[in-house]
Amino acid sequence: MSILIDGKATSDRIKGQIAQQVKEIIAKGGKQPHLAAILVGEDGASKTYVGHKEKACAQVGFKSTLYKFPADITEEFLLNQIEAINNDSDIDGLIVQLPLPSHIDENKVIEAIDPNKDVDGFHPQNVGKMMLNLPTFLPATPYGIVRLLQEYNISTKGKHAVILGRSNIVGRPMANLLSQKAEFGDCTVTICHSRTPDIEYYTKQADIIVAAIGIPEFLKGNMVKEGAVVIDVGITRMPDETKKQGFRLVGDVEFSSVEPKCSYITPVPGGVGPMTIVSLMHNTLKAAENK
Amino acid sequence: MSILIDGKATSDRIKGQIAQQVKEIIAKGGKQPHLAAILVGEDGASKTYVGHKEKACAQVGFKSTLYKFPADITEEFLLNQIEAINNDSDIDGLIVQLPLPSHIDENKVIEAIDPNKDVDGFHPQNVGKMMLNLPTFLPATPYGIVRLLQEYNISTKGKHAVILGRSNIVGRPMANLLSQKAEFGDCTVTICHSRTPDIEYYTKQADIIVAAIGIPEFLKGNMVKEGAVVIDVGITRMPDETKKQGFRLVGDVEFSSVEPKCSYITPVPGGVGPMTIVSLMHNTLKAAENK
Repeated sequence: MSILIDGKATSDRIKGQIAQQVKEIIAKGGKQPHLAAILVGEDGASKTYVGHKEKACAQVGFKSTLYKFPADITEEFLLNQIEAINNDSDIDGLIVQLPLPSHIDENKVIEAIDPNKDVDGFHPQNVGKMMLNLPTFLPATPYGIVRLLQEYNISTKGKHAVILGRSNIVGRPMANLLSQKAEFGDCTVTICHSRTPDIEYYTKQADIIVAAIGIPEFLKGNMVKEGAVVIDVGITRMPDETKKQGFRLVGDVEFSSVEPKCSYITPVPGGVGPMTIVSLMHNTLKAAENK
Repeated sequence: MSILIDGKATSDRIKGQIAQQVKEIIAKGGKQPHLAAILVGEDGASKTYVGHKEKACAQVGFKSTLYKFPADITEEFLLNQIEAINNDSDIDGLIVQLPLPSHIDENKVIEAIDPNKDVDGFHPQNVGKMMLNLPTFLPATPYGIVRLLQEYNISTKGKHAVILGRSNIVGRPMANLLSQKAEFGDCTVTICHSRTPDIEYYTKQADIIVAAIGIPEFLKGNMVKEGAVVIDVGITRMPDETKKQGFRLVGDVEFSSVEPKCSYITPVPGGVGPMTIVSLMHNTLKAAENK
């Protein structure tokens, strides 16, 4: 029987701790931490994500500012806005909700953000520092996962972690963090992806599996070793007429078959998702403190 | 029977190609590429490495300048020198030979180098770009290895690569490059290190092994699968009275037992070593062309 890793309860607890820290800062006459978000266009999922981030800011006592622009703004306009936010000393952290419209170069936009305000940890300089194990903003989802493992006292030392997916925002940084000489690291790490011929061969060896491959219910029970820790990063909207919104959220793990074999498992929703937002709050507080 | 990967011959051939490109640049009235190196103190190995780099510059037709400083210079002095070189438009590439004396912060020094002149690929911004698969200077040893694999038409796609060692200059970038969606990538990659309980368990699975763990003759024949490709990054000076210099160079691979099982293997010396210097020449040429 497995233990369900409750990302919702954990994230609520950490948000409570951050809210307490914010109160203390303000009581000492310090400045209220301030997160700015840029949203371009009308993508439904993007609006939802930004909404969650604004709500979390309110919960922890941060000031938040949303810059909403239509989808047809020019790249130059966006870069100028970022420059202005970089120079605004009241703003501690800045996130630009991705994806951007295709006429705007995402890499150029990310590189335009002041690395000291890049609380998503997407700027190449911060990615490099993470890789070099230097102090920086860790990307939200990988840090959220590491934090979940810590909160549940799941030891990583000497374990074999198998990462499914090699994206820049989850798989790759995850492999890097878990293999670091660090409190939450010291794993032997295998990174699998779409070009791995026999993923099952690797997942069956794993003590810890991080599924971030973007294929709903990809990981089945027969692919998992008895006692494994399974972290599900996937989140796909599957049409479902029985639901009010018309869809249900499905992870990369077939929960019904995998859960009985695990020692620990994250659900979808309520697992990694809430932790991602908490990481952003953590990074914004850190950005404010760094100043 | 295995094929010996001749890093010396390969590097000579690539140096010949670079020399040809330099001639063409100069024939068209372009500027001679210029590599600057900073050497602090009197470490014997460091002097040897810098000497090899100067020699390679001469071979390919680059201008090279060596800045030699005594071990007791201050960090501030060194940072000022770097600033001056950053601003010297004749200099295309700058390397600072490591290690530095302990009173100087290596990270601070590396971050002071203009990323556009950082031909070692050590600046966090360049490390981040490598990780994100954006155009940048790839670090010398990993790029040299990738190049060797390419020159010998050793396919990496879908192969299982096992990396021994998680250093910032070899193991970590190697794992990243081989797992990228790229011509030289698409491997499933496992990264092992000092905290991996049973390294043999992983090496026996490997199609490609990169040994960069810093333990002489660590990898033995019984740890390797029949037909594996073995790349030996190790280079340790072992006392040997029969040699003129008083030592011989030993890799991380026990050549006598591993070689018979391999499809391809690099020797030490004459394998990865010469390719590292060629990578530096490649990056310097690229830095000159970027301007």
